[in-house]
Amino acid sequence: MGELSDTNGSWIASKLPPLGIQLEWMTVVGDDLNMLTEAFKRGMTRSDFIFTTGGLGPTQDDLTREAIANSIGEVPIVQPEIVDKLKQYFEGRGTPMPSHNIKQAHLIPSARFIDNPNGTAPGWWTTKNDVTIICMPGPPGEMHPMWENEIEPTLRNIVDEEVTLTRNIKTLGMSESAIDEIISEYFGNANPYLGIYSKADGIHLRIIARAIDTETAQKLIHPVERAIVERLGPYIWGYDDDTPEISVGRALSDRNMTLAIVDSCTGGFLSNNITDVPSSSDYFKGGVISHNPALLRLLDVSTGDQLPDEFINPQVTEQLSEYIRQKLDTDFGMAVVGVLGPNELDGKPVGQVYISISSSNETRNLEIKLPPRRIQVKRRAANTALTELLKMIP
Amino acid sequence: MGELSDTNGSWIASKLPPLGIQLEWMTVVGDDLNMLTEAFKRGMTRSDFIFTTGGLGPTQDDLTREAIANSIGEVPIVQPEIVDKLKQYFEGRGTPMPSHNIKQAHLIPSARFIDNPNGTAPGWWTTKNDVTIICMPGPPGEMHPMWENEIEPTLRNIVDEEVTLTRNIKTLGMSESAIDEIISEYFGNANPYLGIYSKADGIHLRIIARAIDTETAQKLIHPVERAIVERLGPYIWGYDDDTPEISVGRALSDRNMTLAIVDSCTGGFLSNNITDVPSSSDYFKGGVISHNPALLRLLDVSTGDQLPDEFINPQVTEQLSEYIRQKLDTDFGMAVVGVLGPNELDGKPVGQVYISISSSNETRNLEIKLPPRRIQVKRRAANTALTELLKMIP
Repeated sequence: MGELSDTNGSWIASKLPPLGIQLEWMTVVGDDLNMLTEAFKRGMTRSDFIFTTGGLGPTQDDLTREAIANSIGEVPIVQPEIVDKLKQYFEGRGTPMPSHNIKQAHLIPSARFIDNPNGTAPGWWTTKNDVTIICMPGPPGEMHPMWENEIEPTLRNIVDEEVTLTRNIKTLGMSESAIDEIISEYFGNANPYLGIYSKADGIHLRIIARAIDTETAQKLIHPVERAIVERLGPYIWGYDDDTPEISVGRALSDRNMTLAIVDSCTGGFLSNNITDVPSSSDYFKGGVISHNPALLRLLDVSTGDQLPDEFINPQVTEQLSEYIRQKLDTDFGMAVVGVLGPNELDGKPVGQVYISISSSNETRNLEIKLPPRRIQVKRRAANTALTELLKMIP
Repeated sequence: MGELSDTNGSWIASKLPPLGIQLEWMTVVGDDLNMLTEAFKRGMTRSDFIFTTGGLGPTQDDLTREAIANSIGEVPIVQPEIVDKLKQYFEGRGTPMPSHNIKQAHLIPSARFIDNPNGTAPGWWTTKNDVTIICMPGPPGEMHPMWENEIEPTLRNIVDEEVTLTRNIKTLGMSESAIDEIISEYFGNANPYLGIYSKADGIHLRIIARAIDTETAQKLIHPVERAIVERLGPYIWGYDDDTPEISVGRALSDRNMTLAIVDSCTGGFLSNNITDVPSSSDYFKGGVISHNPALLRLLDVSTGDQLPDEFINPQVTEQLSEYIRQKLDTDFGMAVVGVLGPNELDGKPVGQVYISISSSNETRNLEIKLPPRRIQVKRRAANTALTELLKMIP
C-alpha cells in the first residue's frame, strides 16, 4: 500500500561492492507463495547469490521459508534444538512460547540456520546447485547485526573475486562546475572511477577502485584522493560516512572545546542534528530557539538599543552569537538568523539566512540565500553553519 | 551501490489502491538494455499496467525508451514538434539545446508523450496488446506533478474496477493488546479490513474498504470508525496523514493559543518537529534547549534554591514548564527533562523522561520510561509530549 519505503535493499547493496558481488536485480514481492516461489526460481537461474529480508516471522503470511522449499523441492522438518532456543528466548521475557512460533524452527536439508540473538526469527543459509540463498529477518535491528556478525564474515571467505573500494570526500562552498574544472583530469577513468554528486550538505566526490585485494585498490585511490585534498582542502568537511555534525563533534571533542547556539532560523533542526551524536553533551551546551520577537524576551535583553527592531540582519546575528557564547561560557557561539517562511520577515525574503560564529579571538559572518523551501532552508542553513564552524576550530 | 533508497516505488504504490489497481511486483534494475528488456517482457506477461521511473534522460545510460521499443519490437522515430519544445525549454534558460537531448524527442508508434513542464524528459504512455506501460522521469519533483496532472486523471477514466479506501486512526497511550481487546469484534473481517500497527508515535488502526465507488467504501468504513472513536476517544490524537505536530498545530491555531518549551531531553527534536509545520511561527514561540547545568545559567535562575541540584526530577520539570510559559507569555508551557544517554544522569537511567505541561489553570505531569536508544528516546519523548498537550487544548 506504499506505507513503507524499503531501506534494507539499499543497505545490503552498499555492503556488496567490497565483497566483489555485483548487484543486478532487486525484487519486491507480496506475501504470496506462488509469486515468492517464482521470484526464487527465476533468481536461481541468473544469480550466484540471492539475499532476502522479511517473511521469517511466525504468522501465516510469513512465507519465505516455504517458498524456498517449494523452489528447490525440499520439505521443511522441525528442528528440536531450535524449538528449545525459542522456548528459552520467550522464557527470558517471562512468557511461554506461542505455539505458532514453532514455524520458525523448521529447516530443509539444504539449509542451515543463521543465529539471531535479537529476535525470534533465525536466518536461513541455503546452498543448492551452486546458488546461495541467504534469508534475513526484516527489522533492521535484527538484520544488520546478523549481516555484520554472521553473513559478511562467511561471504568474505567464499568470494575471492575483485573487491571494490570506495572513498567519499565531502565538500561545501564550491560549485559543482568549479570543482569539476579544478580536478578535471581525474574524471572519465574507469578505474579508479571518480564521481561527483550534489547533495544537501554540499558536493561529494566519490572515488571507486576495483582490484584483486583491498591494498591494491587502496593504491589506486590514494593519488586521486591526495590531489583532491590538495586542491580543495579548505572546502572539505568530511569523509565517507561523516555528517557535518559528526565532523564538528570530533573536532570539538579532540580539542576539548564547547559550543552554544541561538537558533532563530532552523527551528531546532540544527541542535537536533548536533545532539544526534551520542557524545554531544560533552561539547554542546545548548541554546535558545525562537523567532523574533519572542527571542528578545527570552534573552532578557533589557536595553532596547542593544538589538534593533529590524531583527533579520547581520549585526543582530553577530550580537546574538557573542551573547550566547558569553552567557553559556563556551568556546564558540553560533547564531543562525533567517527567514524560514512561509512569509517574508523584516522585508527579507524566505531563504535569506545570516550566520555568525564567534570565539574569543575571531568572528565569522556569513550571508546565504537559499531556495524558499522550508525543509531545505533548515537543512542547508544548519549544514552551512556547521561546516563553517569546522573551519574555525583550530 | 546502495547510495540511494528508492522512494518513488512506495509513492506510486500509495496512489494505486484508490484506483483499484493492485500492486504485485516491484523490480529495481540497472541501466542495462538486456536486463531492462527482460523486465518489460516479463511484466507484460503478468500485469495490466507497468509503471516506471527514471531512465528518460538524454545520456547513453538512459535506456527505458529503448528497452520498451525492444520489448514490443518497434523502432523509435524522432518527433520534430518535441524537438521544438526541447529547444524552447533550453532557450528559456538562455542556453542552446545540447545535441544529445534529441534522444528525448523519440517515440515509437504505440506510444504517446506525457507532458513534463518541470524538466526535459517527457513521459511515455505506451499501450500494446492490452498492456499499458507508463514511464515517468525519476526526480520526484518532475514525477509527482506528472502523476497528479496527467496520469492519475487518465487512469481514473480507464479503470472502472473497485476502489480501495483507507482510514487511519492514530492513538497513543494504550497498549496494542488492550486496544485489540476493546475492539476485537472488528478484526478478522475481509471488508472492511481492520489492521493494527505499532509505530513510533503510538498504535495506528487502519480500516481498509473495497467497493464499487468511494461513497460505498465510505459506508463500509463509517461504523467501524465510529466504534473505534467511541471506545478509544481520549487516546486518539490524529487521522490519516496527521503527525503529532500537525494535530497540535491545528488545535492551537484553531483556538489562537501559543506554546513555549524547555527541552532538556530531546536535544531539539521536539521543536524541529513543531517547526516543520509551516504555520508554526503563529503559535510556537520557541524556548531553550540545554542540559543541566548549562540550562540553569541560560535561564538566569538567580536563587540557588529555586532549582535543586538534582535536575532530572518531576518537580524541576514542572517549575521549568511554568517558568517558560510566564517568560514567553504563552498559553502553554512545556518542559521535557530526561536522560538521552549514553550515560545515566543524577542516578536516573537512560530513557527516563519527565514531561510537564502547564497552562494558567492546569498542570499535567507525566513520567515515562523508554528503551535506552538515543533516537528513540528523542522521538518518543517528543511524541508523548505533543499528544499529551493535545489533550489539554480545550
